[in-house]
Amino acid sequence: MVDALRSALPADRLLLDPDVVASYVHDEAEWAPHGEPAAVVRPRSAEEVRAVVLACVETGTPVVTRGAGTGLSGGANAVAGCVVVALDAMNSIVEIDTLERYAVVQPGVINDHLREACAEHGLWYPPDPASSPWSTIGGNVATNAGGLCCVKYGVTRDYVLELQVVTGSGELVRLGRRTAKGVAGYDFASLMVGSEGTLGIVTEVTVRLRPLQHPPRTVAGYFDSIVDAGRAVAAVAAAGLTPSALELVDRQCLVAVDAWKNMGLAVDANVVLLGRVDTPGVEGDAEATRMSACFDDAGATWSAVSTDQAESDALFAARRLAYPAMERLGPVLTEDVCVPKRHVPEMLARIEAIGRRHDTVIANIAHAGDGNLHPLLVAPRDDDAARDRARAAFDDIITAALELGGTVTGEHGVGLLKMDGLARELDPVVLAMHRAVKAALDPHGILNPGKIVAT
Amino acid sequence: MVDALRSALPADRLLLDPDVVASYVHDEAEWAPHGEPAAVVRPRSAEEVRAVVLACVETGTPVVTRGAGTGLSGGANAVAGCVVVALDAMNSIVEIDTLERYAVVQPGVINDHLREACAEHGLWYPPDPASSPWSTIGGNVATNAGGLCCVKYGVTRDYVLELQVVTGSGELVRLGRRTAKGVAGYDFASLMVGSEGTLGIVTEVTVRLRPLQHPPRTVAGYFDSIVDAGRAVAAVAAAGLTPSALELVDRQCLVAVDAWKNMGLAVDANVVLLGRVDTPGVEGDAEATRMSACFDDAGATWSAVSTDQAESDALFAARRLAYPAMERLGPVLTEDVCVPKRHVPEMLARIEAIGRRHDTVIANIAHAGDGNLHPLLVAPRDDDAARDRARAAFDDIITAALELGGTVTGEHGVGLLKMDGLARELDPVVLAMHRAVKAALDPHGILNPGKIVAT
Repeated sequence: MVDALRSALPADRLLLDPDVVASYVHDEAEWAPHGEPAAVVRPRSAEEVRAVVLACVETGTPVVTRGAGTGLSGGANAVAGCVVVALDAMNSIVEIDTLERYAVVQPGVINDHLREACAEHGLWYPPDPASSPWSTIGGNVATNAGGLCCVKYGVTRDYVLELQVVTGSGELVRLGRRTAKGVAGYDFASLMVGSEGTLGIVTEVTVRLRPLQHPPRTVAGYFDSIVDAGRAVAAVAAAGLTPSALELVDRQCLVAVDAWKNMGLAVDANVVLLGRVDTPGVEGDAEATRMSACFDDAGATWSAVSTDQAESDALFAARRLAYPAMERLGPVLTEDVCVPKRHVPEMLARIEAIGRRHDTVIANIAHAGDGNLHPLLVAPRDDDAARDRARAAFDDIITAALELGGTVTGEHGVGLLKMDGLARELDPVVLAMHRAVKAALDPHGILNPGKIVAT
Repeated sequence: MVDALRSALPADRLLLDPDVVASYVHDEAEWAPHGEPAAVVRPRSAEEVRAVVLACVETGTPVVTRGAGTGLSGGANAVAGCVVVALDAMNSIVEIDTLERYAVVQPGVINDHLREACAEHGLWYPPDPASSPWSTIGGNVATNAGGLCCVKYGVTRDYVLELQVVTGSGELVRLGRRTAKGVAGYDFASLMVGSEGTLGIVTEVTVRLRPLQHPPRTVAGYFDSIVDAGRAVAAVAAAGLTPSALELVDRQCLVAVDAWKNMGLAVDANVVLLGRVDTPGVEGDAEATRMSACFDDAGATWSAVSTDQAESDALFAARRLAYPAMERLGPVLTEDVCVPKRHVPEMLARIEAIGRRHDTVIANIAHAGDGNLHPLLVAPRDDDAARDRARAAFDDIITAALELGGTVTGEHGVGLLKMDGLARELDPVVLAMHRAVKAALDPHGILNPGKIVAT
């Protein structure tokens, strides 16, 4: 295989140093297994990706594609004997078209870099996973990444117009379109988004852009109990408000961030809700005031509307840092359930009870406004019993989410960690549809095999 | 076949009267061919649809599904010996959930009926094809229908959360989800949207809703030439404005509407642009003024911002009636190309030239703001030569759209009329992907065969 790749690619595309290879074999789902790859390549063009896939077709070698490796479900983990295709070197912003309002990028472009480049033109690429300083657009597309702004502005799939894709047979195709509308054939672009490298390898992405967001007001609320905070979230939805973000962070996360970054977060609350309202003018002022009232009615110990950008940026920065901050304390098993908004208080109560039942530390961050909860299950390193308890808690959280009409993964993807959960969530007929479409589009079965659905 | 259906369904579900059957054999794409069905059924439940499909699987009988039959590309036309499944009797609004902001409807619900029901709860279902008083949500899903508001609010696919579907093997499944977010497996719901009954039969639809739209301002502009109007459209996009509608209607259409409905449209212009701005407050006022200035700069002979709801409703009603009004004058071949916004003036100029070249009357309506143009090619009844010229013009318009980076169908779907165009637009590899996925999800090949892609 290595020889085949050597003849197919320029020499520097092949990574051989064992330490370097080691940094490409798994994503951030520490608890998911990974195998040893036969090779790691860093192609520089779609044609080079194609050459790799053709070599793999020839030998029946699995291909595992990855961006920055910030995934949280093991979707980018190497399988034994595979070729890892790392797209982080394909990181050019090809074009920003201000009139048509789209950007064309290579898959390795960092999310925040795209956002900054768009901002220079008065435009905005909304999807903002908490990993936006590190994760790539290609990885965002592969997982259909969400983020903070989804509650008002949708997820990655809502912004993907066109994809250039290398198929499982090594053909280079364009899927989707660049026009504002289009219904010419099946929506293969949407099908590729969120398919985690199992149906094709994305080598170029055209994303829709919006005008820059209006400066938001921040509405902060402090709560003694997480269930009260959950009630505030349901109350905001019931009031018909559409915040541009509505995030939940608990004290454990804030303390961990402060211990790491020394941000001077002197938060006198067990749970904080951070809302944003970007509706312009007096309408937006009124919405922010109503959101604050929802917080109060649900039992907030304190709430306020702030237009102090620095203060509110610090709170949101702390939110974004919560996951890596918790990881510093030990291996973290990240949940990603999403439940109907009205069930957010009940789901948070169940998570608390599950933590107690399994004697597992569970910190909480959440895109609360759309019911997407990220309980962080922490187990001390080298404590197998604690790890087993955390795994049991993880399964119970999935059960609770399904009982409440939720899904096992709101935005992180299935990868390896949620394969069991997916099989519990979907009808066996729908699982069979997955296998049928996978076989149709990846006839050699080489694209990220063994992820999402067992074959 | 009829006997099999008789034993599978209550007696009144089977339509036998030849005159009644005749009204179910084609949609409004008058120029597309259709065959004689073996039977027409009007099921009342998903289970009845399932029974029909199982009977068809047994006998290898094609199944053609239809809603109101307002389609414009022949997608719902009967194929020889098929069973036509008319879903117009499944017309209940099952649920409107105001907190989660979704509606659950049967496929035969009329678009406008859903919109009215949502409005009673202060909610809005945006997709608004010009056929909204007649077309069904199921048909809208099958074609991924667009409409006037798409330029700001997107198309049907952007609002579909979950579908209940009868598969080509007669299984009843749920695809998608009802939570705000979810990435559990492949996006089969998006794949079904726009697949024109070739991958499954939709028996229930859950659509996302938005808060009611703010009352819009209307910006009207009169132009001597259609190319000037096209320049105004490009100027609006270049100015970074996002109208909530930006429609073009030419004098031929307005005259036809007035002759029919006697609306007193005394329009002293060859082409009218109708813009809407629904941004609230002074921001919206400023946007409307800027749009009016864009019209003026592009050569409008008159333009104005109106907040007179009655006047503006009359203009938009005339826009919606343009297609049926033109149909009264003779068979109309409706185009549906969509081009990049910057190329709208050039595309309109080419359409004019094509009409002259082929001596064909071409009237124009357009969702101009997103580059989706609907030239209406009119040929007198029983004039074969005129019909041939119109067909040649139709093909030339497709060629021009593809040359300008556009698509052969913006929102009407491929059906029969755009199969040749689709084969010109898509890479042969992508067409092969269509056939592979079709075979995977409809293994018996019975779902609307011979539409979209030849097998």
